Amino acid sequence: MARLTAIVLGSAAGGAFPQWNCRCPVCDLAWNGDPRVRMRTQAGIAVSAGDGRWTLINVSPDLGQQIRATRALHPREWRGSPIDAVVLTGAEIDQIAGLLSLRESTPFTLYATAASHAAVADNAMFDALTMMKKCAVDPGGCFMLSGGIEATLFTVPGKVPLYLEGENPETDGESAANVGIELACGGARLVFVPGAAAVTGAMRERFARADAVLFDGTLFTDDEMLRSGLGKKTGRRMGHMPIDGEDGSLRAFEGIAARRIFIHINNTNPIHIAGSPEHRKIEAAGWQVAEDGMEIVL
Amino acid sequence: MARLTAIVLGSAAGGAFPQWNCRCPVCDLAWNGDPRVRMRTQAGIAVSAGDGRWTLINVSPDLGQQIRATRALHPREWRGSPIDAVVLTGAEIDQIAGLLSLRESTPFTLYATAASHAAVADNAMFDALTMMKKCAVDPGGCFMLSGGIEATLFTVPGKVPLYLEGENPETDGESAANVGIELACGGARLVFVPGAAAVTGAMRERFARADAVLFDGTLFTDDEMLRSGLGKKTGRRMGHMPIDGEDGSLRAFEGIAARRIFIHINNTNPIHIAGSPEHRKIEAAGWQVAEDGMEIVL
Repeated sequence: MARLTAIVLGSAAGGAFPQWNCRCPVCDLAWNGDPRVRMRTQAGIAVSAGDGRWTLINVSPDLGQQIRATRALHPREWRGSPIDAVVLTGAEIDQIAGLLSLRESTPFTLYATAASHAAVADNAMFDALTMMKKCAVDPGGCFMLSGGIEATLFTVPGKVPLYLEGENPETDGESAANVGIELACGGARLVFVPGAAAVTGAMRERFARADAVLFDGTLFTDDEMLRSGLGKKTGRRMGHMPIDGEDGSLRAFEGIAARRIFIHINNTNPIHIAGSPEHRKIEAAGWQVAEDGMEIVL
Repeated sequence: MARLTAIVLGSAAGGAFPQWNCRCPVCDLAWNGDPRVRMRTQAGIAVSAGDGRWTLINVSPDLGQQIRATRALHPREWRGSPIDAVVLTGAEIDQIAGLLSLRESTPFTLYATAASHAAVADNAMFDALTMMKKCAVDPGGCFMLSGGIEATLFTVPGKVPLYLEGENPETDGESAANVGIELACGGARLVFVPGAAAVTGAMRERFARADAVLFDGTLFTDDEMLRSGLGKKTGRRMGHMPIDGEDGSLRAFEGIAARRIFIHINNTNPIHIAGSPEHRKIEAAGWQVAEDGMEIVL
């Protein structure tokens, strides 16, 4: 029986952890090499059914480093790669820029909604990817990845990419600009949602039947960026619901039995710090924090 | 007296070394951890006059990893960075994609020719860099970088970026699409030319008065990609003169007294291998091979 395996290539939000221009108290621990924190590159996962071929879900600017650090993704022949597909759940820079590390004439298929394909096409640099085959998929439809993995994209409350925002973007509507993905193989189900402004009833149904959920852990509290003086937006304005609080993800996942793992963790989020009150709180609620290199075998 | 210092952030050509989709004999050594080779990220340098501020020359897709690995570039305050400028010598992906790792609202100035600014502007993603100030500089004109470093761009035979090529691009003309840079400070001169299809008389004059030259070491022989079966183009067609041969850089630099260092080394180039005949040949000619993290203090 094929086993569904996911490798966490990166677990941080856009900007990575520590972030190049930040010496907030959480980043400071990382720059100082404090053992309570781990460096984390920007979020993305690789999935396989055990046949030696891998699909990447979201490709961040850190993809080159992530491939070099992940033996399963190293080439095994004169020219070629175990990576034969990429799926996007959106077109933020931290979801698409890694395509630039997949150039040099090896073919692969890019699966994304028409909205995300259009955002990618608005950047001339990607024209260098002459061997990339584009495949548009609609939320709700099922498509097959290598090894017989059934993939389904589904809409998630959120917003369009930052660089395509107008003055007052809608941040809690559901559209094909921001989706989650469900992967099914051999009876196992994995759901990956790196950005969500809210959890809908339909999303809860997917989580309830999953074996594992990797979910948006960007901010611990909605006003975290404001209080730290590092940003002018709430989490919701950025399209990310907080972990804590009445409308947070801890509350929204109550009663869900799946293995639950936070991913896409912003540099300001104290769950980066092992043993912090916030880290203890999410552990007490049955959650883990994703780490670069973590393997999830279902 | 201010001292001009350069740190090599990355020393490989586009695609890095080893390259994600390559198991040629040279890459194979790197994937196997053979001690005769070092992993190299994509080419770029940081320069400073010792005042704690740094200018990056070219920013590759590996910039995030490079900053994390370089203590001098780590932030020293709550929000901010020692990096206050970026200069481009062209707009290839391996020269510009690292701008995507400088987002998150810290200001810096981007110096480039109008041709390179136009190429950057053809990518919507860079609109996320809301704090980036663009400054167009013409080849031949002098502009000042932090710490009183005088910078001059100069045209170099080469070509436009790959993703902007037509069917038969001119590869040996001189234009503002491909330049080198000369940096002068406190009487010291450093020249950086990561891509050159030829060495002109004017370039030789610059090299002759420099203390150090970092020069295009992409390929050892012009037909290296063809012979390895890994490409369909000669070095010259790619805008890079070979190291060896009648028209190579070893010959072109004869009589130049400056410290000479090859950078932008393609994954197929046997000078990656310490002790190889090709590595011994360039050492015998007085050249070094750049390594990630190398410091050049003038």
